[in-house]
Amino acid sequence: MSTDRRLRLGAFMRPTSIHGGGWRFPGAWPDANFNFAHYRQAALTLERGRFDALFMADHLAVLNMPIEALKRSATVTSFDPLTLLPALAAVTSKLGLIATASTTYNEPYHVARKFAALDHISGGRAGWNLVTSANPHEAFNFSLEQHVEHGRRYARAREFFDVVTGLWDSWADDAFVRDVESGVYFDPEKLHVLSHKGPHFSVRGPLNIARPIQGWPVIVQAGASDAGRQIAAETAEVVFTNANNLRDAKAYYADVKGRMVLLGRQRDHLKVLPAAFVVVGATVEEARRKKEQLDALVDPASGIASLSVRLGTDASLFDLDGPLPAIPETNDGKGSRQALVDMARERNMTVRQLAQCVGGSYGLLELIGTPQSIADEMERWLMEEGADGFNVMFPYLPGGMDDFVDLVVPELQRRGLFRTEYEGTTLRENLGLPRPPNQFFAA
Amino acid sequence: MSTDRRLRLGAFMRPTSIHGGGWRFPGAWPDANFNFAHYRQAALTLERGRFDALFMADHLAVLNMPIEALKRSATVTSFDPLTLLPALAAVTSKLGLIATASTTYNEPYHVARKFAALDHISGGRAGWNLVTSANPHEAFNFSLEQHVEHGRRYARAREFFDVVTGLWDSWADDAFVRDVESGVYFDPEKLHVLSHKGPHFSVRGPLNIARPIQGWPVIVQAGASDAGRQIAAETAEVVFTNANNLRDAKAYYADVKGRMVLLGRQRDHLKVLPAAFVVVGATVEEARRKKEQLDALVDPASGIASLSVRLGTDASLFDLDGPLPAIPETNDGKGSRQALVDMARERNMTVRQLAQCVGGSYGLLELIGTPQSIADEMERWLMEEGADGFNVMFPYLPGGMDDFVDLVVPELQRRGLFRTEYEGTTLRENLGLPRPPNQFFAA
Repeated sequence: MSTDRRLRLGAFMRPTSIHGGGWRFPGAWPDANFNFAHYRQAALTLERGRFDALFMADHLAVLNMPIEALKRSATVTSFDPLTLLPALAAVTSKLGLIATASTTYNEPYHVARKFAALDHISGGRAGWNLVTSANPHEAFNFSLEQHVEHGRRYARAREFFDVVTGLWDSWADDAFVRDVESGVYFDPEKLHVLSHKGPHFSVRGPLNIARPIQGWPVIVQAGASDAGRQIAAETAEVVFTNANNLRDAKAYYADVKGRMVLLGRQRDHLKVLPAAFVVVGATVEEARRKKEQLDALVDPASGIASLSVRLGTDASLFDLDGPLPAIPETNDGKGSRQALVDMARERNMTVRQLAQCVGGSYGLLELIGTPQSIADEMERWLMEEGADGFNVMFPYLPGGMDDFVDLVVPELQRRGLFRTEYEGTTLRENLGLPRPPNQFFAA
Repeated sequence: MSTDRRLRLGAFMRPTSIHGGGWRFPGAWPDANFNFAHYRQAALTLERGRFDALFMADHLAVLNMPIEALKRSATVTSFDPLTLLPALAAVTSKLGLIATASTTYNEPYHVARKFAALDHISGGRAGWNLVTSANPHEAFNFSLEQHVEHGRRYARAREFFDVVTGLWDSWADDAFVRDVESGVYFDPEKLHVLSHKGPHFSVRGPLNIARPIQGWPVIVQAGASDAGRQIAAETAEVVFTNANNLRDAKAYYADVKGRMVLLGRQRDHLKVLPAAFVVVGATVEEARRKKEQLDALVDPASGIASLSVRLGTDASLFDLDGPLPAIPETNDGKGSRQALVDMARERNMTVRQLAQCVGGSYGLLELIGTPQSIADEMERWLMEEGADGFNVMFPYLPGGMDDFVDLVVPELQRRGLFRTEYEGTTLRENLGLPRPPNQFFAA
């Protein structure tokens, strides 16, 4: 157990609340997912709270659920991450900006270029959450008959990563001399043409933008399957995880950091951040009442629909008052489903109970209590190596976020567990991550 | 000839100057193409000058030219339009923001979504410059062996447009009721699933973002070939053109507006904006000296290389002191090449003279003179129906832009040819364009 450990905090912001009833809570912004002025205010609040980063998940389709549930979902209209984050970069100065971009339905040249641009515009605050697209309905928006199979998605993702990082290294950091006198704009010796040819991609390069300020934007992942853990251990610098309890979190933490060591990477060059749904009250009772009030705002149909999306199968066909039956293997994201199945078994939950839990806090780790009790739990996960920090999910905006920033953050700071000022100007500097050397040019 | 005609002004900003020597001019920002703070200042200057829009061209590759010329080009590192413009949206309030996005190497779902997001974030100021990718070297960055053939590019572009506009209409304007009391977020009767199936694309939809504030972002094009003119007449609301003289401009203007009438569209629902390279001086002599000083900063190798890019063939193999030989047909953009060939013939230019012209102001319309003489020429083009305005190209930043905004704009305003205040808050309102009705829902 280390003693000088500090928490890293990300804010999960797409949707701005994963709680299905969050948009209806008294005082909440019903349009928080889709109002730029609200997003700007939230980003400034997070910066005031010294958060490492704002994180945007992504879907390339409207989620597939029955219309009775869908019409109640605040997530159907939202901004895509790579359009919203440049706008937020222009109105913030220290907050990290992490966007999800799929390797399944994008081209690596576009992705490399957009993240490089975001990194330059933000002064080195970009992060890329590299995902494979696990939602089968996304395929239908991209001229495909069916979803890309799990193993092939990961093979494509691995090559995609190599192409993107290769393109980022197209130019040495000091390539652009801009010598007004001689008229030479860059040194040709400091230009590398990638000429990548692989099973999935053939990309010549060079990228038409300078090397990112951070060398590479911070590489983020959320893989929970075996293939996902391995690609994370090889390439990720932040992983967002799902863990309902400290025991599972410690097992994941030890596994991924162990894989890193086998690969010759330093353990602290990857930060493990479990998702945590946080509700703050002056007393534990008050926080629990707030959570109950939120849960009561979720329509039962929405709970079953959310559960169906998470399980990849129609849960309305199950006996709602019986235990969760065995779930057939699908081609979707595996880790998030398994965490739910485990939780239902451990807690002896009926399908109805599980649905309500998923429709509410999505079945993730819940920290519901006072600033002190929440800080206690975060400290325990940090010190026992279940986490390097958390990806915080707020129950609603703006109040749920203000509570965390105004009440929990000062308690964490008082304990010496969280920064009072940003350490640097880039996301890497704040996370304590090294700047990658250019693979084609010596420093 | 109409009497109440007003000019529309766009600012061509990628590159920030098309003049090859602009970055070396005394007082210029050598890194203007690639410095967000400079872009922000430029956008604010344009807004002060009441410009309709800032326009960003795009390339999906570093331009292919010999390294001796390439190393002198300020264009090799720049921002991609759809990452820069959201950031500029956050720091401006009235200026239109037009981004180029290729229909050749993108997916329509991504393009529809990003422009919808830009339109919402900017409060209705987005425009989409719909292009086909004419640079053969772009194919190599997108896993293709060779460039997509001209006719096929246009067929794909036409279908791409139908898919994007269909996706923009996924939701009625009033679909999102966000009824906190009942928990209903949207009215299912106001959701349309596109289910497009065509020769190039199969896209189900719906788009996961609300209908753009403008209904559709303003549709911009630059087609000069017959296929390009036809798609412009069918779909465009702004066209950027190249014309070296008023006679050609009038012919183009009459042709495209005539095609519109045949298609049942109103002539004033499309604005024709020729590119104009503008250098302002206190006297015509001073402006000409400034232009000579700029031209002297272009290396001869760069001129030949720029000419080769424009012609789609290696001009260094020609007799530099002879006339331009016949240029073989290629698969590249046709209109811009033909304008050059015509100019060389009309002016009896040698290859060397043509190269210097292209390396300087790219062989476009040049307005070099006093605020009065420039306003005279703009007025003439406007009144004789050669143009509805101009896409202004500045010789360098910030001085070349400041000169235009501080000296030419007031002269145009004094003559009643240009607005003194923005007419509305959206780009459509400022351009005087109608808001498209939703094709799937009555207003």
